[in-house]
Amino acid sequence: MADVNRRWVLRRRPQGEIAPGDLALESAPLPELQAGEVLVRNVYLSLDPTNRIWMSDIDQYMPPVQLGEVMRGGTIGVVEQSRSDRFQPGQIVNPGIGGWQEYTVVQEGMTTPVPVAPGVPLTAYMSVLGMTGLTAWAGMTDIGRPQPGETVVVSAAAGAVGSIAGQIAKLKGARAIGIAGGPEKCRWLVEDLGFDGAIDYKNEDVGAALDRLCPNGIDVNFENVGGAIMDAVVSRMNNFGRMPLCGMISGYNTEGAMPGPSDFGRVLMRRLLIKGFIVIDYFPRAAEGLTELAGWVMSGQIKWKAHVEDGLENAPAALQRLFTGDHDGKLLVRVSPEP
Amino acid sequence: MADVNRRWVLRRRPQGEIAPGDLALESAPLPELQAGEVLVRNVYLSLDPTNRIWMSDIDQYMPPVQLGEVMRGGTIGVVEQSRSDRFQPGQIVNPGIGGWQEYTVVQEGMTTPVPVAPGVPLTAYMSVLGMTGLTAWAGMTDIGRPQPGETVVVSAAAGAVGSIAGQIAKLKGARAIGIAGGPEKCRWLVEDLGFDGAIDYKNEDVGAALDRLCPNGIDVNFENVGGAIMDAVVSRMNNFGRMPLCGMISGYNTEGAMPGPSDFGRVLMRRLLIKGFIVIDYFPRAAEGLTELAGWVMSGQIKWKAHVEDGLENAPAALQRLFTGDHDGKLLVRVSPEP
Repeated sequence: MADVNRRWVLRRRPQGEIAPGDLALESAPLPELQAGEVLVRNVYLSLDPTNRIWMSDIDQYMPPVQLGEVMRGGTIGVVEQSRSDRFQPGQIVNPGIGGWQEYTVVQEGMTTPVPVAPGVPLTAYMSVLGMTGLTAWAGMTDIGRPQPGETVVVSAAAGAVGSIAGQIAKLKGARAIGIAGGPEKCRWLVEDLGFDGAIDYKNEDVGAALDRLCPNGIDVNFENVGGAIMDAVVSRMNNFGRMPLCGMISGYNTEGAMPGPSDFGRVLMRRLLIKGFIVIDYFPRAAEGLTELAGWVMSGQIKWKAHVEDGLENAPAALQRLFTGDHDGKLLVRVSPEP
Repeated sequence: MADVNRRWVLRRRPQGEIAPGDLALESAPLPELQAGEVLVRNVYLSLDPTNRIWMSDIDQYMPPVQLGEVMRGGTIGVVEQSRSDRFQPGQIVNPGIGGWQEYTVVQEGMTTPVPVAPGVPLTAYMSVLGMTGLTAWAGMTDIGRPQPGETVVVSAAAGAVGSIAGQIAKLKGARAIGIAGGPEKCRWLVEDLGFDGAIDYKNEDVGAALDRLCPNGIDVNFENVGGAIMDAVVSRMNNFGRMPLCGMISGYNTEGAMPGPSDFGRVLMRRLLIKGFIVIDYFPRAAEGLTELAGWVMSGQIKWKAHVEDGLENAPAALQRLFTGDHDGKLLVRVSPEP
């Protein structure tokens, strides 16, 4: 067993894109385990748009990562050593917020077993059967509430959350239109995931494409992007439309506030509902959501994929892929081999 | 009985403030009543911010008033002549959308009796016990849902809707802070209506005053105004705050779209709910709302007042008072004497 832990520490708050020197890869000795603690070797690290928020000191839903702290991130891993009766070496666990590091020492009360089902890859628990899937489920079923025959638009639709959100809309009987970057992602949405249409925002006029693909207007906007794409969708929303506000990734790498829809009068005139949400608010309903998702995954009704980058040292560069779109499915770093 | 009807007709869509020539006061012969029709002499005409929306051709929740049509507006009046078994001369009725005119000829099916209670002035049915009260009730109880001890901010708080909305928040056990124009209105809110504080936006820095009066942040923003005042409130809203979007009067006299909150990131980070609404959506619940309001009015728990301008010919000039704030309570035009 290693006695040294490599970890990414936040040294400076990024200005715009993450730059060399904002994070530092450091080594530190592993502490002795105390009673009730577990040592977890992290296997997969989840990279999410919200990581960039945590690096900044804008107003946000959790305290930002402090300078000098290990970068925050979700992981799953394997128990290497345990001073808890509840965990045994070899067990697959979620150590709460494992962080951007090889090993996490965690209290037993913060650790949850991962109920790995036969035939389901470990990466599923970092995506469709983890926080990502729960995010899509919460926003779509609790806020979006698509009805049969309604039209749902999902931005960043080929992303980890968006791709699942759109498939849930389909399962609820709605039409799903995705907005994604590039012909290959759009092809995946329509041909493999069953979206009713896809818009390549890098090569198409989004407004014109929405007019073509949503002739009856838009009832639900699952919003991941913000900015001009949000405006194009909101300006086509129907009476009593719903907008789960999941993220605004277009603004995370820029300084200054992210503005609301430029035609806010439409929110009044069309009696739209806008609701910001964060997956942590739905932890009390996690069992319900993950059970429903697991059923869809097992029956093949929801498809998903993961994009795995190898090596903790590549985490900062990999995170940048979320902003360029240069990834394919749920973005993960493999920190160490699967057991 | 008169055989001529004076009425305001929309001749030109206003650019900015209503100008002479946008509306024309015309006379027309009264038609013969057909079977099932009722002739109503309008007594009170309601003036509302939404009238200005109807004059424009922006995207809106009903078709705009067409050029050449009688200007749309709510009235109550007295039946002068009836070819319906359901209505008798002398009865007080709401003729649906009576319009800016002395007389309205209306189908019996569009007409509803006004259940005037002893001791309640007719003007109450044009304000707290009419559409105005129902608007405040719907937005506050169905969307705002203030909880005991929470802080509620109401903009245009001395207005017809805002003054009732704030009092409902108090009845629900919340703290109510009003934003209004001028010391006299602020005094009325606090001393007569029981608001916990009032901010004179014409003479105070709204942000600083909100900081002082809402030390625990803001849980509900009953939004009537939009623009900079909305921004000041939204930027102080707490986790899971609610914003019934009732109106954005600051933008009605200006061309171009009304923008959303400049810091929309807060909607995400604080998981705010924003919901546009129009009173017509709550017609199915009108009996419930008006009954609850009537109880509060009868017991003296909700106070209200009306500002009555005499004469149909003064309607356009009177409407302008909504935008300058130069009125005191629910703005009405007395078209003809009470029976």
